[in-house]
Amino acid sequence: MPKLWNETIEDHRRTVREAILDSTWTLVHEHGLASVTMSQVAARAGIGRATLYKYFPDIEAIVFACHEREITRHLAHLAELRDQPDDADARLRAVLAAFARISHQQRSRGAELSALLHRDERVSQAQQQLVDLIHGLLAEVAQAGHLRDDVPLAELANYCLHALTAAGSLPSTAAVDRLVTVTLAGVRPQE
Amino acid sequence: MPKLWNETIEDHRRTVREAILDSTWTLVHEHGLASVTMSQVAARAGIGRATLYKYFPDIEAIVFACHEREITRHLAHLAELRDQPDDADARLRAVLAAFARISHQQRSRGAELSALLHRDERVSQAQQQLVDLIHGLLAEVAQAGHLRDDVPLAELANYCLHALTAAGSLPSTAAVDRLVTVTLAGVRPQE
Repeated sequence: MPKLWNETIEDHRRTVREAILDSTWTLVHEHGLASVTMSQVAARAGIGRATLYKYFPDIEAIVFACHEREITRHLAHLAELRDQPDDADARLRAVLAAFARISHQQRSRGAELSALLHRDERVSQAQQQLVDLIHGLLAEVAQAGHLRDDVPLAELANYCLHALTAAGSLPSTAAVDRLVTVTLAGVRPQE
Repeated sequence: MPKLWNETIEDHRRTVREAILDSTWTLVHEHGLASVTMSQVAARAGIGRATLYKYFPDIEAIVFACHEREITRHLAHLAELRDQPDDADARLRAVLAAFARISHQQRSRGAELSALLHRDERVSQAQQQLVDLIHGLLAEVAQAGHLRDDVPLAELANYCLHALTAAGSLPSTAAVDRLVTVTLAGVRPQE
């Protein structure tokens, strides 16, 4: 059955929107937030300036939309790792390592972009979803008896996330792996 | 011997400057950055507006000066703890606990003030001094054989600082103490 006219329009809009986000994100990472203009974005996305303004009012709005898309993807990726058929220990390590790698990749963001994204309200919401995700995994690891029992799980989850943001100032992925090991050592049962 | 005229002037200037910083810092914490005016600061510090402008051009400049003073005090306090006559283990714990308590106290800062101070160039410099301080202490603990030896000291110092910033989202000082314990467990020798 052929697509309905409405669905085709929807598809088209979604494709254009994705092209705008991709173009902007690339330009911002290549040239820095301050130097990117709506004209450059339109040119790179292969659409007219007038069309671009039908989608977004300014660069900042596009950057926030990029960020929203990125956060959604990251959370989906981490949830996927949590839901693997491995044991809880292996899944905890996989999730923490993936989060550390995300922090590590974001180190290349300029101060300007970081400051803007820091203001995004979506961040604290995503932070909470992350804490919940890790909290749940820690509960599973605790059931297996591989977690210290003198500290509330919520505090351990909070500790993990903050410790792993240290990946943002590390020079190599080997160092990031060591950071995950050190962080995990903090939550293990103590003699 | 009576003070020279120059010294008296110097003393006076320093006293006024301190009064300006104290007044501003209090007002900003009580009412929020955006609502504090130069007139309020002058009134609270007990000086005229014209005098205030001889010291600082605007609120932002005063806030940065407050921040500079605060950072200097914190670093001096941490250095003092480092230089106590206790063994290295005890001094490491004392320094990390003090840093965690500082992060914990700063949680009450509004988003606006945090964002402004985040832009302060002095922060990254102070961060480096902190890393160096903890790095030095970790080296002493390593010599005593109480540190894991599979991770470079610089990375462990970086890990400690990031993990302890989790204190900024903790509800109680008991939770802050637990965070210090967990963080320290990460750097201990592993079986």
